[in-house]
Amino acid sequence: MSEIAFPSWPDVAPQLINVAAGRAPADTVVRGGIWVNVHTREVLDHHDIAIKSGRIAYVGPDASACIGPETKIIEAKGRYMIPGLCDGHMHIESGMLTPAEFARAVIPHGTTTMFTDPHEIANVLGLEGVRLMHDEALMQPVNIFTQMPSCAPSAPGLETTGFEITPEDVAEAMSWPGIIGLGEMMNFPGVANADPKMLAEIAATQRAGKTVGGHYASPDLGPDFAAYVAGGPADDHEGTCEADAIARVRQGMRSMMRLGSAWYDVESQITAITEKGLDPRNFILCTDDCHSGTLVNDGHMNRVVRHAIACGCDPLIALQMATINTATHFGLERDLGSLTPGRRADIILTSDLTTLPIEMVIGRGKIIAEDGEIKVDCPHLDWPEHARGTVHLGHTLNAKNFEISAPDGATSVTANVIGVVENQAPTKALQADLAVKDGLVEPTQDICQIALVERHRGTGGVTNAFVSGFGYQGKMAMASTVAHDSHHMIVVGTDHEQMALAANRLGDVGGGVTLFKDGAEQALVELPIAGLMSDSPATEVAAKAEALGAAMRACGCDLNNAYMQHSLLALVVIPELRISDLGLIDVRTFKKINVIEASE
Amino acid sequence: MSEIAFPSWPDVAPQLINVAAGRAPADTVVRGGIWVNVHTREVLDHHDIAIKSGRIAYVGPDASACIGPETKIIEAKGRYMIPGLCDGHMHIESGMLTPAEFARAVIPHGTTTMFTDPHEIANVLGLEGVRLMHDEALMQPVNIFTQMPSCAPSAPGLETTGFEITPEDVAEAMSWPGIIGLGEMMNFPGVANADPKMLAEIAATQRAGKTVGGHYASPDLGPDFAAYVAGGPADDHEGTCEADAIARVRQGMRSMMRLGSAWYDVESQITAITEKGLDPRNFILCTDDCHSGTLVNDGHMNRVVRHAIACGCDPLIALQMATINTATHFGLERDLGSLTPGRRADIILTSDLTTLPIEMVIGRGKIIAEDGEIKVDCPHLDWPEHARGTVHLGHTLNAKNFEISAPDGATSVTANVIGVVENQAPTKALQADLAVKDGLVEPTQDICQIALVERHRGTGGVTNAFVSGFGYQGKMAMASTVAHDSHHMIVVGTDHEQMALAANRLGDVGGGVTLFKDGAEQALVELPIAGLMSDSPATEVAAKAEALGAAMRACGCDLNNAYMQHSLLALVVIPELRISDLGLIDVRTFKKINVIEASE
Repeated sequence: MSEIAFPSWPDVAPQLINVAAGRAPADTVVRGGIWVNVHTREVLDHHDIAIKSGRIAYVGPDASACIGPETKIIEAKGRYMIPGLCDGHMHIESGMLTPAEFARAVIPHGTTTMFTDPHEIANVLGLEGVRLMHDEALMQPVNIFTQMPSCAPSAPGLETTGFEITPEDVAEAMSWPGIIGLGEMMNFPGVANADPKMLAEIAATQRAGKTVGGHYASPDLGPDFAAYVAGGPADDHEGTCEADAIARVRQGMRSMMRLGSAWYDVESQITAITEKGLDPRNFILCTDDCHSGTLVNDGHMNRVVRHAIACGCDPLIALQMATINTATHFGLERDLGSLTPGRRADIILTSDLTTLPIEMVIGRGKIIAEDGEIKVDCPHLDWPEHARGTVHLGHTLNAKNFEISAPDGATSVTANVIGVVENQAPTKALQADLAVKDGLVEPTQDICQIALVERHRGTGGVTNAFVSGFGYQGKMAMASTVAHDSHHMIVVGTDHEQMALAANRLGDVGGGVTLFKDGAEQALVELPIAGLMSDSPATEVAAKAEALGAAMRACGCDLNNAYMQHSLLALVVIPELRISDLGLIDVRTFKKINVIEASE
Repeated sequence: MSEIAFPSWPDVAPQLINVAAGRAPADTVVRGGIWVNVHTREVLDHHDIAIKSGRIAYVGPDASACIGPETKIIEAKGRYMIPGLCDGHMHIESGMLTPAEFARAVIPHGTTTMFTDPHEIANVLGLEGVRLMHDEALMQPVNIFTQMPSCAPSAPGLETTGFEITPEDVAEAMSWPGIIGLGEMMNFPGVANADPKMLAEIAATQRAGKTVGGHYASPDLGPDFAAYVAGGPADDHEGTCEADAIARVRQGMRSMMRLGSAWYDVESQITAITEKGLDPRNFILCTDDCHSGTLVNDGHMNRVVRHAIACGCDPLIALQMATINTATHFGLERDLGSLTPGRRADIILTSDLTTLPIEMVIGRGKIIAEDGEIKVDCPHLDWPEHARGTVHLGHTLNAKNFEISAPDGATSVTANVIGVVENQAPTKALQADLAVKDGLVEPTQDICQIALVERHRGTGGVTNAFVSGFGYQGKMAMASTVAHDSHHMIVVGTDHEQMALAANRLGDVGGGVTLFKDGAEQALVELPIAGLMSDSPATEVAAKAEALGAAMRACGCDLNNAYMQHSLLALVVIPELRISDLGLIDVRTFKKINVIEASE
C-alpha cells in the first residue's frame, strides 16, 4: 500500500540494517529523549532514535555510532518522544477542506496518520470522487489511508445521489494503493437482514485482507446487533455509553471512541477501561467529524488524547489508543504506530504527557511542524474542472420555484413540518395549521420553508416543505450544498425571493454555503470542490464559517450548531422527518408523505 | 488462506447473520458456560455459543432463538468455554510424527491451531517436502499453518543438504493457501550483515503481507541485535531471560516464550509481565520442539499454559498468550483466537482455569476430542514413494568405511574430539591423545567414534571423527537419520562393525534411529518419511523412542536427553565442534579442521 507514496520497509531494509549496525550514518538522529514505548507501555529515558530514508533504523540508549558528518541532529532535550497520532476514523469533507488543506491544518497538532472515509464526495462524484480524494491523500507528507465508502446512497429508494457505489466499485477500489478497508457500513438494517449488496461489499473487503468499518447507530444490543456483528464489521464508532463500548469489544469488534466537533462519546465510554478495567487494546480514539474551526482553535487527535487523559485514562493507555491500537486494527503495526525499527519515522516531541503540547512533529523522518507552525508543503491535486463544477441547477431559480400551493379553494391547511431539536440529530415530525393567501401556504413566525434543490443532474427539481426551530426573522434565506448524505442543496428561508437568490448564488460559485437577507448576501463559504470542500487554508475557511454563524445569529437563530442542523435535514436515515429530492420522508416508516396533510 | 480447507467468514456470513438474528437454526449450541473473553480479559458466566457451518454465529446470554429441532446441544454445565489453544511456533518433525499423527496427538490436549515450520524436511526434500507437509496440514480437522522455511542449508558452505531453499522458493510459497509467513530466520549474522539472500526472503514475505519469524540465538543485545531487528523479523523465540524478552518487545517484535520437551524459557522470561508489569499483548507462548513422549505423557500447549500460570501469570493473560495474541501476530485475529462471531468455532470446555483439564475440544464446530480421547479422523496424505525412500547410501557399508587411519608410521596421535556436555546444546572442542594399532587410530573407554554418513545423494561419503561424553561401553553403535539440520546420518559407536550394521539397517528401513550391540539390534524407531517422521500413532513412536532410550542406558549412556545430543552433533551453527559431510567443523571459526591434529 505504501509503495507508491513512500518506500516500504523491505525497500530500505539494507540501509536500516547498516545504520543500526553502525556501519552507515543515519540521515537524522533524535537525541536524548524519553522513549514512550507503546508496545510495552513504558517510558524509558535517555534514548536516541536514528532515522534513515524516512524510517526508524535504531532506537536505543546511544545512537552515536549512527552519526556521520551529514547526519542532522535533533536534540530532544529530555522531552518525550511519542509516535505520531492516528485518527482511526474520520471524514475529511467535514472540515470543508481538501485532503491537502486538512493535512496542513492537523499536522501541527501531531496527527500523522488518518483513516478517512470520503463518503460525502462519493455521493457527488462516485468512484471517481473517491479516487481523487485517495490520490490527493497519497500526495501528502503524512499518512492518509482511504476507507472505501460503502453506502452511497445511504437510503436507497428514498433519495437520488449523484452517483452510487456498487460492490464492483468496492472490489475495484481494494486494489488501489491507498485503500485500507471499507468505510463505515451504515446500512446496519441491511447487514442484519443479510442484504446481498451490503454483504458483497463486506466480502470483497475481507477477501482483500482489509478492515471493514462499522456503524451501528442504535442503542438496541439485541438480535439486530448480534446479526450485525455476525456480518463482519470490525469496529464501531457509534457507541455512546459504556455498555455500547463493552458490548462491541466483547463481540470481537474494536470500539472507536470519538471526540469530534459535535461528538462527545469518549467520556461516556472510557469508563470501560478506567473503571471496569477491561483490556484496553481494543479501544481506539477517533474524531469522525471535525469542523475547520475546531482544527484551527482546538486541535485534532491531540485534543482527543488530552480529553481521554482528562477523563482519567492513563496517559500511556490514551496514547496507545491513538497509535499502536489503531495501527494494529488496520494491519499496519509493522509500518507505523510505534517508535521501533522499520516503522515510518513519525515522531512527536512533547514536554508533558498530560497536557500534550505538540512542540515538534517529525513525519517520515522530516520536521513537518514546530511550535504549531507547519514546515512542509501539502501538495494539491490538480482537481479536474468537472469536480469544481458540480452544482447543476438546470435553470435560474426564481421565487415561484419555492411556492407551496394550497389545494384549490382552501383557506388554511394542516402541514407536516420538520421540527429541529437543539443538540439532537433526530428531528420531530410535527404538524401545524398554516394560513393560505392567494392560493399559497404561508410560513409563520416559527415555521419557515425548506427546499431541496436538485443539483447533481440539472433536473431543475425543487422539493418544498416546512421546517420549524431555526427562529429566523425578517426576509432571509440560507442555502448549502453540504446536505448529507446525498448532497443536493438545502435552502431554508422565510422568503421565496431570498431563497432563489441564495440558491442561484451557490449555482454561480460552484457550491458552498450562503446567507441572504433583504436581497444582500451576508456571508459566503465557497466550497468549489464537489460543493463540499475548499482548497483554501483552514484558517480562511474557519473565518468564513464563523462569519456565517454570525449571520445566522443576526437573523434570529441562536441554535447550538445551527449550521449542522441545516446540513443534516436531508439525512433520510435518521428519524423522524427529512426532506429529499423525492419528497418529504417519514424516516420512522421509510415512506414519503405529503407536505399538506389536510385542508379546509 | 482458509478457502481450500474451510469456508471463510464471507463465504458463510449470510448463514451466520440469520442464526444470530434468530431466523435460522444453529448447527450446534454450546449452552450455559462461562465465556472466557480474551478481547476484554473477562470471564462472563451464563453464556451460550451458537455455531453454524463451523463458525461462531452468536455468543450471548441466550441462544434459544438459534435452536431448531436439528440443532445439536452441548451442555457446558457451568464450565469455562475458552478458545482452542494456538502454538505460535513449532516444528512438527520434532515429534517424529507426520502432521496427521501430530494433530491426532495434540487435539485431545486442546491445541486447535499450530504455526509450523517444516524446516527439517526442507533440508531433505526441499520445496517439495515443504509442500507435502503443507498439504497434509491443510487436510487436518484443526488449523495448521505453515511457515516457509528460510534457512536450508543452515550453514551454507559448511554442509551439503538434500535441497536448498532460495528466495524464489520463498516467493513462490507465499502464494500457497496454507503459508502464513517465513519460518525462523536463523541466519542472524546474515541479516545483521545485510546478506542479500536473507533479505530477499524477508522482503518476499513482507510484500506478501505475511509474518517473518525470527531466531536471534545470542545473548548479545548490542549492535548485532539492533541490526537484526532492523532487518524485519517480527518475533523471536530464542530469548532465555527476562532482559531478552523485554528487549524484543520494546523493539516492536513479539516475544515467543517456549516450553518444549527440552526448552524451559517461560519461567525465566514471564517475569517481564508478572513482575515488571509490561503490557502482555506482545507475548506469545509456544513449544518449538516436542517429542512424542511429551505429547503422550505431558501434553502440548495446555502444558505450556498451565506452566505459565504456575509461574504466577494471571490465567486470563496466560490464555491470551496462547490464543488472541498469537492470532493477532499472524494477522488472523478475525478468523480465530477468540470466541466471537465469525471466528472458527474452536472451543475447549474446562472446569478449572488453573489446572486446565481439557474436557472437551470442539474444532470448527465439531467435537474432536472428549476426556482425552480423539473423536475425529486425521487424514494422511498419500506420501509419494520418493518421500519414503530418502536414505541413499550408495553402497552397503562395512567396517572399513569407519576406520580412521593414522599417518604412516605414527604410534599415537593427538585428535580433535567433539565433547558432549550434558544439558547443553554447545559442544566443547577437546583434544585427546589416542593410540594407533595396525595403522588405525583407536577409540578409548571415554572416546568413541562418530561418523557422518551422506544419505541424500548416495555418494557413499563417510566423514569419521571422535566424540566423547556418551559413556558407551562394549561393542555398540547407534545411528540416526534425524541429524540436524542437514539430516544426513549420524552414527556413534565403539566398534566399526556395529557402526556398519546400524547404518545399513537405516538404509534398509528408510530411516529412523537404531542401536546395535554385539551384532544385534537393541531398538529401532522407524521414521520412513524423509527419514524424519513416522506415520504411526504417537503412542507407538513414543514407546519405541522410550525403548531406544533404555537401550542407550543399557550401553552405559546416562546423559540427560542423550538422543537429542546425538541428533544435534551435525548442527554446524552451534559451537564449538560439529561434524558435517564436508568434515569436522570448528563452529567458533566456521572452518573445517583436521581430525588428527598431530602424531608421533
